Amino acid sequence: MKYGARNNIVGTVKSIQRGDIMSLVKFEVTVPAKMASVITTESVDDLKLKVGDTVQLVVKAVHVLPVKEA
Amino acid sequence: MKYGARNNIVGTVKSIQRGDIMSLVKFEVTVPAKMASVITTESVDDLKLKVGDTVQLVVKAVHVLPVKEA
Amino acid sequence: MKYGARNNIVGTVKSIQRGDIMSLVKFEVTVPAKMASVITTESVDDLKLKVGDTVQLVVKAVHVLPVKEA
Amino acid sequence: MKYGARNNIVGTVKSIQRGDIMSLVKFEVTVPAKMASVITTESVDDLKLKVGDTVQLVVKAVHVLPVKEA
Amino acid sequence: MKYGARNNIVGTVKSIQRGDIMSLVKFEVTVPAKMASVITTESVDDLKLKVGDTVQLVVKAVHVLPVKEA
Amino acid sequence: MKYGARNNIVGTVKSIQRGDIMSLVKFEVTVPAKMASVITTESVDDLKLKVGDTVQLVVKAVHVLPVKEA
Repeated sequence: MKYGARNNIVGTVKSIQRGDIMSLVKFEVTVPAKMASVITTESVDDLKLKVGDTVQLVVKAVHVLPVKEA
Repeated sequence: MKYGARNNIVGTVKSIQRGDIMSLVKFEVTVPAKMASVITTESVDDLKLKVGDTVQLVVKAVHVLPVKEA
Repeated sequence: MKYGARNNIVGTVKSIQRGDIMSLVKFEVTVPAKMASVITTESVDDLKLKVGDTVQLVVKAVHVLPVKEA
Repeated sequence: MKYGARNNIVGTVKSIQRGDIMSLVKFEVTVPAKMASVITTESVDDLKLKVGDTVQLVVKAVHVLPVKEA
Repeated sequence: MKYGARNNIVGTVKSIQRGDIMSLVKFEVTVPAKMASVITTESVDDLKLKVGDTVQLVVKAVHVLPVKEA
Repeated sequence: MKYGARNNIVGTVKSIQRGDIMSLVKFEVTVPAKMASVITTESVDDLKLKVGDTVQLVVKAVHVLPVKEA
């Protein structure tokens, strides 16, 4: 399968907290990963982003989609 | 600063592709990271997710928010 | 009303599961629909997407916004 | 593959508009589909949503993830 | 029309920057607005959020959907 | 801190509704705010958006990220 998404990170399930409708699943990522972000060019300039910068990549948990081999 | 998000991953900028409105920024993540996903409890059951499972975490690049110390 | 979104699909409510904070609503879509996706051009190339391809369109339920006539 | 998402719709690519960083891909969905939405329980009450209601399901194109068999 | 979303803010268009595929639209919000956020209960605790706290509400521009009367 | 997001709105917490996994937090925004939206150029044309237009900015609560000074 090929996904139309730039971030495909391999993780291991560490815990599952079941709720009535939504559940919170936690993962450990040990393999070095590549990540990608699409932001406005205006934000690139505002952040003065340049190669070599160290940044924090913040992602709300609702945007993380787990995919498992059937 | 504290973020109301479960994913805070440290990354290093590897490349920046500037576009007219949107830009694509790529990062390398070397530090082992913890990630979290919120999905429906129904999806947890459908995926038969359990502790120890290896999964792929797919995230569209538009959902990744870089934060940089001023 | 006009929406700044490319996907406007007509659906009929089939079930509602109420939770403490979030609820899960299911719909049936019978009318043929048009859908649209914005992805990186890099993803288009990676997927080797071309006219006529059959693909799966995956959308997390938290991104679906129901709108109802008052 | 199993996805931690409630919406998996089969579509056929109708057109691809390539941009510098982002591209817009359009699909035709002919198979009847099931869709799901997660909203606040407060919104369910505000919309007075009930089984049998016809609603519009609005989704921004950036939230639609195409997946293709390799 | 009623939207299954907790944030409905009235804004006036200040500028439009047209790009090949995506455009960036800026708005001025003068009317006092109410906003709402859904985060994990774990994040609420991590942030030690309590009534009266002043916070910054960060939203990526791709998540803002303009709706206009026809 | 600098965020790769175009919307940074100052708000005061008015109420917190704790749920099992997710919580709903409400804010009051009194300061005039600037907002930004990224939509397809096609949507700009469909909406016939122009400077001076009054629109509604709809944002699902799951997309609002509160950030608090530590």
